[in-house]
Amino acid sequence: MLKPYTTASKEELSAQLSLCREKYEKLSAMGLKLNMARGKPGAKQLDIVSDLVECLDKDELFAGNVDARNYGELMGLDCAREYFADVLGCRKEEVLAGGNASLELMYNIISTAYTHGLNGFEKPWCRLEKIKWLCPAPGYDRHFKITEHFGFELITVPMTSTGPDMDMVEELVKDEAVKGMWCVPKYSNPDGIVYSDETIRRIASLRCAAPDFVLMWDNAYCIHEFARDFVPFVDIVSLCRECGNPNMVYEFASTSKVTFPGAGISAMACSEENLRYYQKILSIRTIGYNKINQLMHVRYLKNKAHTLELMKKHAEVLAPKFECVLRHLENDIAPTGIARWEKPEGGYFVSVFTEKGLAKRTLELCKNAGVVMTGAGATYPYGVDPDDSNIRIAPSYPELDELEKAMEIFCLCMRIAALEKLSA
Amino acid sequence: MLKPYTTASKEELSAQLSLCREKYEKLSAMGLKLNMARGKPGAKQLDIVSDLVECLDKDELFAGNVDARNYGELMGLDCAREYFADVLGCRKEEVLAGGNASLELMYNIISTAYTHGLNGFEKPWCRLEKIKWLCPAPGYDRHFKITEHFGFELITVPMTSTGPDMDMVEELVKDEAVKGMWCVPKYSNPDGIVYSDETIRRIASLRCAAPDFVLMWDNAYCIHEFARDFVPFVDIVSLCRECGNPNMVYEFASTSKVTFPGAGISAMACSEENLRYYQKILSIRTIGYNKINQLMHVRYLKNKAHTLELMKKHAEVLAPKFECVLRHLENDIAPTGIARWEKPEGGYFVSVFTEKGLAKRTLELCKNAGVVMTGAGATYPYGVDPDDSNIRIAPSYPELDELEKAMEIFCLCMRIAALEKLSA
Repeated sequence: MLKPYTTASKEELSAQLSLCREKYEKLSAMGLKLNMARGKPGAKQLDIVSDLVECLDKDELFAGNVDARNYGELMGLDCAREYFADVLGCRKEEVLAGGNASLELMYNIISTAYTHGLNGFEKPWCRLEKIKWLCPAPGYDRHFKITEHFGFELITVPMTSTGPDMDMVEELVKDEAVKGMWCVPKYSNPDGIVYSDETIRRIASLRCAAPDFVLMWDNAYCIHEFARDFVPFVDIVSLCRECGNPNMVYEFASTSKVTFPGAGISAMACSEENLRYYQKILSIRTIGYNKINQLMHVRYLKNKAHTLELMKKHAEVLAPKFECVLRHLENDIAPTGIARWEKPEGGYFVSVFTEKGLAKRTLELCKNAGVVMTGAGATYPYGVDPDDSNIRIAPSYPELDELEKAMEIFCLCMRIAALEKLSA
Repeated sequence: MLKPYTTASKEELSAQLSLCREKYEKLSAMGLKLNMARGKPGAKQLDIVSDLVECLDKDELFAGNVDARNYGELMGLDCAREYFADVLGCRKEEVLAGGNASLELMYNIISTAYTHGLNGFEKPWCRLEKIKWLCPAPGYDRHFKITEHFGFELITVPMTSTGPDMDMVEELVKDEAVKGMWCVPKYSNPDGIVYSDETIRRIASLRCAAPDFVLMWDNAYCIHEFARDFVPFVDIVSLCRECGNPNMVYEFASTSKVTFPGAGISAMACSEENLRYYQKILSIRTIGYNKINQLMHVRYLKNKAHTLELMKKHAEVLAPKFECVLRHLENDIAPTGIARWEKPEGGYFVSVFTEKGLAKRTLELCKNAGVVMTGAGATYPYGVDPDDSNIRIAPSYPELDELEKAMEIFCLCMRIAALEKLSA
């Protein structure tokens, strides 16, 4: 029944729009309240790991000879640093095991650069006239917000199927006002693509005019495959060292989507030199991170191999949700030719690119029918998508039956938005 | 045998010094390793609360209708905010329930003022020529470090037995470059004194030239009596409001010395207006604080009344340690007249003031005999005690038998330092 809208006649389009609107009225009337706005694990995933809170024994709260209950160990428990070194493929000495939020570790690096400067660079960024920052987009809104918040000029770098447009990046970093770049290298937020080996090598080899250029490498989905087995991934800390940029990178990871979102443990990996410098700042900033939570996590997750087994259980819950999203897009949208999307094998999102000018209207229609999505534009710097095209779908939170309904509505809304435009 | 050194003859002093040195040699030879450097609870205190880690049930991880396992609730769980409101005597709406470190909450307020300015004041402090900061001293080294780290000029305000010298404070705040003041109002670090009602009222009523003057009210020992029952204490947030300074104060507290140091929960209390503003910054800085840890704490500590019962158990461990410190000072130092000290009824420290010029030498002798103390000068801005007089004793960490030995050595070292000086 559906065919490419571009080949349809005025009458066909008009008939389609009437049909879609009729269906929309019916669905809207159901008073649904569905949420696909954030990459929030669903209740079933949380149930899988809830025994985490019961895994500590009150008589076994030492990690080696360190009493996890008391002050000390600013860089985190050794076992927690080892755990993340195992997961990320770097060395324990390159890891800071942190608190419950990797986002806060990221904010603190930017904030430190702003107030005091980073390792080896005396001039804090707040003393500079202008800071520019590279934002591969679509990307993660919370990343962009941090750098916007500090008044940096955000420069959009288009994402390709192999990562950021590297020709453009290599050109831009010749400007010494360009101080850094955000990256989500594996199952990028929102496209779900994995940076290619070539892209990663080009990034690690960048010749930046700014000596204190910061590569913010948010490896948020480093072990988060849902549609295939774990895919090994390069250790960016080693690679940057090999490529002559040992102090350029700060890598981040967390267990927010392994155990509990907002109550997991996080990590930052970078050169030992960077870490030594940062430790001095950290000793002023905090008394240390929560070692009891670190101990609880290491006892529970054990190591990378054991964690990958757990990730398969998450995948069992997540895979059908992503299949549902892709099936709806395939059946309801593909024939109309009004959008394209990637088919991720890991991560938390499906990124849809509609024809220009449809995203806002689509999400407005969704909202009015009770389906909340990530705001249109959120995946671009300053929240402005120049094409009004990208929509981030986060299918993890709703239950499968709700998701079916939400996707039905979403696809319908996108078709209405397209038909309205073509009929106008 | 001991008598005031000032009334002793040269011969008597010389004989004393020989005697003390002989004893010192013997004690040094024992190869002791004792630590009275930080306000770190001892193992017995941690044992009291270790069942905290077993108090959560995997099937009961909701707080009301909020799933503590998932993202959300940036200001902390309602029950955690209620808990701290109960402890501090303010309203739940005035409380942010935070992570494991109140020090980090403090750092973040200063850092936010520096990078973005606080509520209602567009001009961030990093854009100002000069910032001055009031530091009642002796005080807490980590407080001083934070403000030193941001390049503020630290101004020493002498502590009296009723709190900071308020005549001086009232004069100093007429300078609009003076942007704030550190306070530990109850069982101050290190003197252990409680600010008098009059002092507190004068603080809350300050007429500051700087409209964004920040009162950093670290109520670290708000329920930490060890030598008497809980003493009610004024709610500074209400008092500042009554005195016409509703947005001046940020109060801090934590359970670091109630449950686990470094793995407790923390809180910040301030006006609702301040909190609304800060929430916007916080939403960029972090995804939220660890709600599982908050839930665990509220289930375990229940409320203020229940927590005060627990604090009595801590007091049973702490009181003999403080008695030991005071007994040694009374027996070994008081007769010589070379030092004075307060007799705290709560908190974590005993603050000793030696005759001028004895602190460094005393602690050097201690160190060489295997007793580590807080560095001389640490209790003053920039780590410099102009009189080289103040020594902070932290008796909580060693076991009682170790403490007896450590205090014996400490008193001996102080006497040697005095005798050396008088004999020179």
